[in-house]
Amino acid sequence: MPLPPPARPGQSFAEIDTPALIIDLDAFERNLVTMAAFAEATGIRLRPHAKTHKSPEIALRQIAHGAVGQCCQKVGEAEILVAGGVTDVLVTNEIAGAAKLDRLAKLAREARIGLCVDHIEGVREAAEAAARNDVVLDVLVELDIGGRRCGVAPGEAAVRLAEAVARSNTLRFRGVQAYHGSAQHMRSVDERSEAIERAGLLTRNAIERLAQAGLACETVGGAGTGTYELESRSGIWNELQCGSYIFMDADYARNRMADGSTFNTFQHALFVLAGVMSKPVPDRAIVDAGHKAAAVDSGMPVPWQRDGVIYTKPSDEHGILTGDPVAVPHRGNRVLLVPGHCDPTVNLHDWYVCVRGLGGPDAHVEAVWPVAARGALS
Amino acid sequence: MPLPPPARPGQSFAEIDTPALIIDLDAFERNLVTMAAFAEATGIRLRPHAKTHKSPEIALRQIAHGAVGQCCQKVGEAEILVAGGVTDVLVTNEIAGAAKLDRLAKLAREARIGLCVDHIEGVREAAEAAARNDVVLDVLVELDIGGRRCGVAPGEAAVRLAEAVARSNTLRFRGVQAYHGSAQHMRSVDERSEAIERAGLLTRNAIERLAQAGLACETVGGAGTGTYELESRSGIWNELQCGSYIFMDADYARNRMADGSTFNTFQHALFVLAGVMSKPVPDRAIVDAGHKAAAVDSGMPVPWQRDGVIYTKPSDEHGILTGDPVAVPHRGNRVLLVPGHCDPTVNLHDWYVCVRGLGGPDAHVEAVWPVAARGALS
Repeated sequence: MPLPPPARPGQSFAEIDTPALIIDLDAFERNLVTMAAFAEATGIRLRPHAKTHKSPEIALRQIAHGAVGQCCQKVGEAEILVAGGVTDVLVTNEIAGAAKLDRLAKLAREARIGLCVDHIEGVREAAEAAARNDVVLDVLVELDIGGRRCGVAPGEAAVRLAEAVARSNTLRFRGVQAYHGSAQHMRSVDERSEAIERAGLLTRNAIERLAQAGLACETVGGAGTGTYELESRSGIWNELQCGSYIFMDADYARNRMADGSTFNTFQHALFVLAGVMSKPVPDRAIVDAGHKAAAVDSGMPVPWQRDGVIYTKPSDEHGILTGDPVAVPHRGNRVLLVPGHCDPTVNLHDWYVCVRGLGGPDAHVEAVWPVAARGALS
Repeated sequence: MPLPPPARPGQSFAEIDTPALIIDLDAFERNLVTMAAFAEATGIRLRPHAKTHKSPEIALRQIAHGAVGQCCQKVGEAEILVAGGVTDVLVTNEIAGAAKLDRLAKLAREARIGLCVDHIEGVREAAEAAARNDVVLDVLVELDIGGRRCGVAPGEAAVRLAEAVARSNTLRFRGVQAYHGSAQHMRSVDERSEAIERAGLLTRNAIERLAQAGLACETVGGAGTGTYELESRSGIWNELQCGSYIFMDADYARNRMADGSTFNTFQHALFVLAGVMSKPVPDRAIVDAGHKAAAVDSGMPVPWQRDGVIYTKPSDEHGILTGDPVAVPHRGNRVLLVPGHCDPTVNLHDWYVCVRGLGGPDAHVEAVWPVAARGALS
């Protein structure tokens, strides 16, 4: 039995139940257009990451603005994207085991489906699943270009793996996955530039070796919201996998631009609306959004347009606002929180409440979208 | 459309899809019995906290073992508990606003329902909702006895609030909520004892003042898994609200007993089963459970019975196992993780996979239970 949404289309902002996951549609649409314009201007493909939003509604809007498809991390996410009408999905991850690979292969009957490999067993299992299901799967060889997570070394190991892919009748070698996750949240441009420059040298070397072995990389995928301009400028990557740009969280806002200013290419478009349930003392209010409503893995949520107030010490269903007594809100007040990290925050909610005119006198609920792939872990 | 469960009853342990939220039924039942026996022996009431498990299946088992009812934090949780057959629910939290209070009051037509107040407005709103819905609500006055979250000061303010409750025709003053959250995870018995002793002095003082005003506390509620023995021994509290005991997480296991040994009254009964999707280098494996599968607010999950291996640097859907190359598992292996914190980990999953004989050769899925109140935030 799905939980009812915290609001209905047509309701005023004041009528939204708390806590609620809010999209500021105006900011969201600006982010959508800003990234689409960047991709068009630079001639680089955009394949946004659906692990951020978990929503076919949002995926289809990104595709309508020129994105070539979607990325995701799990087979379950891919299933929900394809069911929602997305026809080109890349799982930017390794998938182990016949059961999951069969599910993925089945999707390739309806959509173009890709995945990553970093081990010969992964190649074998994917090829067998594709054969069992009479489909062809696209494959990227994942390179470890500095993230130290999955991925093969970007030299001979990558070539051997790509050759194994190319030998398979049921897999199509598409290129390389070269995502540098740990570079995304380095605060200064210099740090990020250095990390992506090194990643670029490794990636270019792998591409050249693959070319020498007769294997062309149609896709060189990677980049996130923290570094996409660097990858785009490199001449190496040709497909961007940014996810967070669409919502922009508090942690990305701590990144700095080249002139030292706050990273502001994108605007905060995602909020958790919380209600104050208690203000026991003048400098402390307690809201109904704890870490079950706003993820804290990348720092605390930040109260929006509430100078002098911080969010601290969350428990499961309580968050504490503390600061200047005059600024700390009162029982019954409502507070917008910018999530520390969008992706896991979205995953805590069943519904997006999409608000038009947020912050203005006519703010109202324009739409309610399910977080369709919430909890799609497998 | 609810996501399919990662296993079906009757399947072997090896057939469970990953990641999955696993209950070790043998350990779970021992925890159930251990706490029930403690409550019976001490003559103190047990009202376990459903924010841990979010499951009527588990609630009803606790009640069958002598618990008087359930606690929860949100109206949505109460709705799901009552729909699942629980007839006595206390929301150990303040509830603000007519819409939520109307939902809560409606439940009082089918079950005994209580809530907490720490402000005169909360009393007024709850009384009005009860009147509108023609029910009576039980009310505890929440005291701040050291947790510095919600709650009134345990003196005159508490008496004034209780008097307001007692004056209402639609509210029933039941006593005080005296939970000391921040004492639960203090590591040494000395620290916990000192915190609960101080909390006890404050609580006793409030009870005495209430008695002087003619207000008897039928319920003095509080205590968690970290401190329940202390509250029980005090002669002050008469209703325990422990939640985590049923599952026992890695953070509680860092508490110490009086003799300095690890807190082992309860056993780990909850796990996240993760699959290894990559082992790119001998000392690093990557599992398919990141912080969207195991909450990290109270520290990292701990690999179970894998000496020399730690879980580190989770991203959304990846967790890194690192350590002794011989001990680090291989691609395709499966690993049980003890969650750092059960409550928010449970809230990430849609299903419990209940395993009988975990760790043995005949380990199999005995039942699959929905995490029915997952995401019940409002």
